Amino acid sequence: MKLRELASLIHGEIIGDESIEITGASGIREAKEGDITFLSARKFLKDLAGSGASCVIVSEPLPDIPVAQVKVPNPQLAYAKLLEHFYVKRHGPAGVSADAYISGTAQIAEGVSVYPFCYISAGVSLGKGTVVYPHVFIGEDSAIGEDCILHPNVTVRERIRIGDRVIIHSGAVIGSDGFGYVFDQGVHHKIPQVGGVIVADDVEIGANVSIDRATTGNTMIGSGTKIDNLVQIAHNVKIGKNSLIISQVGIAGSSEIGDYVTLAGQVGVADHTHIESETIFGAQSGAMGHVAKGIYSGSPGMPHREWLKARAVFAKLPELQKKVRELEAKIKELEKEEP
Amino acid sequence: MKLRELASLIHGEIIGDESIEITGASGIREAKEGDITFLSARKFLKDLAGSGASCVIVSEPLPDIPVAQVKVPNPQLAYAKLLEHFYVKRHGPAGVSADAYISGTAQIAEGVSVYPFCYISAGVSLGKGTVVYPHVFIGEDSAIGEDCILHPNVTVRERIRIGDRVIIHSGAVIGSDGFGYVFDQGVHHKIPQVGGVIVADDVEIGANVSIDRATTGNTMIGSGTKIDNLVQIAHNVKIGKNSLIISQVGIAGSSEIGDYVTLAGQVGVADHTHIESETIFGAQSGAMGHVAKGIYSGSPGMPHREWLKARAVFAKLPELQKKVRELEAKIKELEKEEP
Amino acid sequence: MKLRELASLIHGEIIGDESIEITGASGIREAKEGDITFLSARKFLKDLAGSGASCVIVSEPLPDIPVAQVKVPNPQLAYAKLLEHFYVKRHGPAGVSADAYISGTAQIAEGVSVYPFCYISAGVSLGKGTVVYPHVFIGEDSAIGEDCILHPNVTVRERIRIGDRVIIHSGAVIGSDGFGYVFDQGVHHKIPQVGGVIVADDVEIGANVSIDRATTGNTMIGSGTKIDNLVQIAHNVKIGKNSLIISQVGIAGSSEIGDYVTLAGQVGVADHTHIESETIFGAQSGAMGHVAKGIYSGSPGMPHREWLKARAVFAKLPELQKKVRELEAKIKELEKEEP
Repeated sequence: MKLRELASLIHGEIIGDESIEITGASGIREAKEGDITFLSARKFLKDLAGSGASCVIVSEPLPDIPVAQVKVPNPQLAYAKLLEHFYVKRHGPAGVSADAYISGTAQIAEGVSVYPFCYISAGVSLGKGTVVYPHVFIGEDSAIGEDCILHPNVTVRERIRIGDRVIIHSGAVIGSDGFGYVFDQGVHHKIPQVGGVIVADDVEIGANVSIDRATTGNTMIGSGTKIDNLVQIAHNVKIGKNSLIISQVGIAGSSEIGDYVTLAGQVGVADHTHIESETIFGAQSGAMGHVAKGIYSGSPGMPHREWLKARAVFAKLPELQKKVRELEAKIKELEKEEP
Repeated sequence: MKLRELASLIHGEIIGDESIEITGASGIREAKEGDITFLSARKFLKDLAGSGASCVIVSEPLPDIPVAQVKVPNPQLAYAKLLEHFYVKRHGPAGVSADAYISGTAQIAEGVSVYPFCYISAGVSLGKGTVVYPHVFIGEDSAIGEDCILHPNVTVRERIRIGDRVIIHSGAVIGSDGFGYVFDQGVHHKIPQVGGVIVADDVEIGANVSIDRATTGNTMIGSGTKIDNLVQIAHNVKIGKNSLIISQVGIAGSSEIGDYVTLAGQVGVADHTHIESETIFGAQSGAMGHVAKGIYSGSPGMPHREWLKARAVFAKLPELQKKVRELEAKIKELEKEEP
Repeated sequence: MKLRELASLIHGEIIGDESIEITGASGIREAKEGDITFLSARKFLKDLAGSGASCVIVSEPLPDIPVAQVKVPNPQLAYAKLLEHFYVKRHGPAGVSADAYISGTAQIAEGVSVYPFCYISAGVSLGKGTVVYPHVFIGEDSAIGEDCILHPNVTVRERIRIGDRVIIHSGAVIGSDGFGYVFDQGVHHKIPQVGGVIVADDVEIGANVSIDRATTGNTMIGSGTKIDNLVQIAHNVKIGKNSLIISQVGIAGSSEIGDYVTLAGQVGVADHTHIESETIFGAQSGAMGHVAKGIYSGSPGMPHREWLKARAVFAKLPELQKKVRELEAKIKELEKEEP
């Protein structure tokens, strides 16, 4: 494909030879001749020199580089489109396999694919264009929207509602029982978990994620929120829109998390925590109580800048202790010298 | 259902109109007209004002509230019974599906349900009333007790023993190989993991949990212990009775954990740790060595109250450092002034 | 089996009665009469007194013990061989089940076992002697080497390359989409994840592990590396040879980890981290930036010895603070006394 055609696909302005042939798209370090790549930040400029790319997508033209450039407002977004263009093959709908189990009361819209060994329970509905890969289980009366992808070995329990364009990766479990017990006479009695889970549109759920159903009411994941692998979301949690929940985060029961929140890897959120919108928690930090909008680190979390300073002193605590001992000795000396 | 009938179900004493109609049970914040709810602690009293509930279960009657009350010794326990009463439908046994694979040498008791696409290996036994949902694998010679529930996509490997009334959630793996290697000539040689796992009665195992089989002997989970989602239990671990292992806890090899222990979310337990009964570890803390009964926080864990104090000073380390520098300067000044 | 035969199997030298009968192998604490056990370190000598073992494998003969000994250079390695000898039964190949789905374009080598309810996609190849247990999904054009074991409920997505003698435990997901989005106009747009995963020879992957496919290029796991349960490996990560990644470790995108690295339980590795070969990170620690060969603890990680010292002072911070306050008071006193 000629560069001029590609550039028009991403509405970009060409700087250089528009007639060159582009045969693929790739990250800056892996790109080879014929590839188009992108520059997301100036810190990656050093990688460009060693890159084999024939063309680079930029937001600001670079003065002295030997390869063609395409200028767009958001290079990474343009790159994402080109990855899709070059590499993502859409299969037509595969239909409903005779080797799947489909309840007679399930409602399957047109253009749905259900692969062998899926189990679709009574009262389930699958929206138009949704793809259900092998070994997926969908429990009674659950509703899956349109154009969803359920990867192999996903479990969606009963009475779960999933919106449109939701992607669920392999091993994820939606609607397992919340961890609720009442202690009486020396044993833990199970509290029936009879609520559900509502997953809004455009959510992506990573591999081996667990999202528990509510005790009563619903656990809720807001539209556009993206959840990475191995995340735990407990019963009655509510997450807002367009938040990012990175791998191995654990969110305990009844916590509420706003819109555009980022929880970095391995963050722990205590139960009944409330995190305001646009808040960021750094990796391995802990959240509890009411958390005002801000950036936090440490466990329990504290404002990131304060944590940085405290952490810097922590690393030098032995010196500080030594210093205090020296001062102590000097003061003793001074006290002795007193008349 | 009339309140008087419900109250008799939970052996409670009615304060108010016993003839009102109760149509459901719900948490205090989600309850609507016709619902019965419960008050577990006085801190939730503020939620009662805004609740739509028509009746509240209490342990001490409240003086000035406009809705009916039912007094019982343990309101949450009564509430759990009512959730069961209103919402948990028992299906009759589904029988053994012709679309499951059942070895000819498997022993299936009466009233067992085995759903399509299950794989029941040679020598397996399934006790009376046990339900095995789709896509469950049970390995050779494993024995599952009575009235167990194995949710979809559970894996139980070979020679595992599971007691009665055990619930295993989707994606859980019982009996994967322990992580054991011996280093020789520059490579890690696998140590065969030939032991098993014993899960006692009334245990619940969360979604995507991994419990490794022992190298030799057995990994053991004591009766009544409840394990939340995404927990790791390594080979030869022994957990006592009625302990609570919250989500994303990791317990390394050969550790022993007593009865009534609580490990909060994301706790890490080093190998060969011994934790005495009735011990609590706070979220994200770490346990190692021999741990006497107590409450611990931090990593490595220290007594919770001491940790609280140390953590409070940590947050103010920059101030402490500044103070020490000031004192240093003052002492220099004092030393200069010495004759 | 006579001890003399066993000893010849592990090329060991007998100290004691070579005619005794050995009927099993077991850990030092579980061993009973007739068992052979091993002593890996002198700290386990105390366990030997209470052990029922009839024979112990040692690297240095013990002077005064009542049971037979077998001397070898690496007792644990010899023990691993004996576990294999006594307990690991090799089944013959089970063949390809008629109840599995096998694409017409899949290439199945001789001696392969494919169990019921497996889904083998178009273009897949399975090498000689590989065993694929029930409910395994293998996506289009993925290649699995020889003598691999894929335990039940494993998911291998499309275009993944797996070497020889690789073991993948239940619930593991190889090749899920990396967590990549570009933010534009208030929403997160998915970046297609079109790369793959390459798993080299002799790798073992634990239960419920997630290894994401690369955005472009490949996520790579080097030969002989062993990965414990519930580990997260993000897109474009590269791990070297013979490394040990313990349970619940999370490695963020594009990080590079050398050979013979050990990451202990629950370690977090930030994105674009580079960890040199032979480095060790302690449990629950955090790695970021360029990490030179060494031993690290804490989050963020610092040299282990320094961390130990700092952590010791941390535990006594309240005392240190009190001391500083006392010094402050004394200095005030001294200043007053100044003329």
